[in-house]
Amino acid sequence: MAERTAGIIVIGNEILSGKVTDANSPFMAEGLRAAGVELRRIVTIPDEVDLIAQAVRSFHESYDLVFTSGGVGPTHDDVTMEGIAGGLDRKVVVDPALEAGIRRHIKGEVNAAHLKMAEVPEGAVLIHDEGVGFPTIQVENIYILPGIPEILRKKFDALRVRFQADPYHLKIIYTRWNESEIAGALNQTMSEFPELLLGSYPKIDNPEYRVKLTVESKDEAYAKRAFDRLLALLTEAAVVRTE
Amino acid sequence: MAERTAGIIVIGNEILSGKVTDANSPFMAEGLRAAGVELRRIVTIPDEVDLIAQAVRSFHESYDLVFTSGGVGPTHDDVTMEGIAGGLDRKVVVDPALEAGIRRHIKGEVNAAHLKMAEVPEGAVLIHDEGVGFPTIQVENIYILPGIPEILRKKFDALRVRFQADPYHLKIIYTRWNESEIAGALNQTMSEFPELLLGSYPKIDNPEYRVKLTVESKDEAYAKRAFDRLLALLTEAAVVRTE
Repeated sequence: MAERTAGIIVIGNEILSGKVTDANSPFMAEGLRAAGVELRRIVTIPDEVDLIAQAVRSFHESYDLVFTSGGVGPTHDDVTMEGIAGGLDRKVVVDPALEAGIRRHIKGEVNAAHLKMAEVPEGAVLIHDEGVGFPTIQVENIYILPGIPEILRKKFDALRVRFQADPYHLKIIYTRWNESEIAGALNQTMSEFPELLLGSYPKIDNPEYRVKLTVESKDEAYAKRAFDRLLALLTEAAVVRTE
Repeated sequence: MAERTAGIIVIGNEILSGKVTDANSPFMAEGLRAAGVELRRIVTIPDEVDLIAQAVRSFHESYDLVFTSGGVGPTHDDVTMEGIAGGLDRKVVVDPALEAGIRRHIKGEVNAAHLKMAEVPEGAVLIHDEGVGFPTIQVENIYILPGIPEILRKKFDALRVRFQADPYHLKIIYTRWNESEIAGALNQTMSEFPELLLGSYPKIDNPEYRVKLTVESKDEAYAKRAFDRLLALLTEAAVVRTE
């Protein structure tokens, strides 16, 4: 399977103004990694139609999969549908199936705010996944998810089977030396294994180790060879333990 | 004072691959809000020189203040300095004061990895703040901060006095009605107070309230008038409490 890339667009003044911490992009980042998808970019932007349209146009062209989070409710600041439609040069239309569902669900009078929830970019598809009450709206390669974490998680987990790719193989080395002392071994490993995903993460004030090294590849044997080589270069004296 | 805007560039494969949750941009978002600065965009990108340069070029031109987080250590994946230099069409140079500091600090032999920590984009300025061991590097309107949260926080907090602007004035209404029921009152308020920052945040499964409304402005009297008007439109029946 060809490599799959992804981008996440987080829409929400509440995150930029520090009122709410975005829990959705970390959740999706982890899920995409587990699915073998390479997440290339996360952007957080205000609830403004033009900025959403601009981000959607760019992400739609740049990545295989695009996820948006937020801005899909019934109030004045929910302009994600309009922004996505604008980014794809489409109109916003009322989806008849969504409208029918809303009319069934609402006991009293159906108002303009209720009907706003039936608006989608033209050409959108409804995805009905088991255990998820409200359908997920997809248009082109864009999955439109809500900002409320509980609902986003359910929807995202249900979607995941649709984009599962080859997994990453990860091995970890914890070292008692600091980054300046191990940089030579890391550079040497990268020159011998140029395709390796090698991460170096210092931890301060940790009694057990100073740096966590992550050795990754979609090619399991390649990851293993690089891991063995790096271990040898570091020497036993530097290594606390491996995973 | 003119309105100040800001953008944050988070640099790190570890965040995109779901290994680490970014705690730095939420911290800075909160701090910027408290300082009266309008944060317009957060982007998270990989440790790749070209992508860093592209983001830096765009943010440098778009916002008054730019903060980068991550990619400033001594290892192979620390390419933030090179990326920022590229985005500003400058070279990376060794800063003599940083090099002297490193040579004083290192007891044993100074290696290439140590000296990498003295590299900065040409024309960079060192900011020495009290209580922060290592100087913060600034070039143009860009503050270059490390990925390690403990150090970033110290540096950011020390910087904050430099960009304090007029504060935002915030009032909060908690409602027992849902968004569809209050959307009319929100729209009416926005039409009467077009400059208002009005946020609507539903909370599911909360026993106390359904929606938290945030009413904000840098003009305290304007925020108060809008708050009173929205309270009247919502009617007492809808309101749980205010803050």
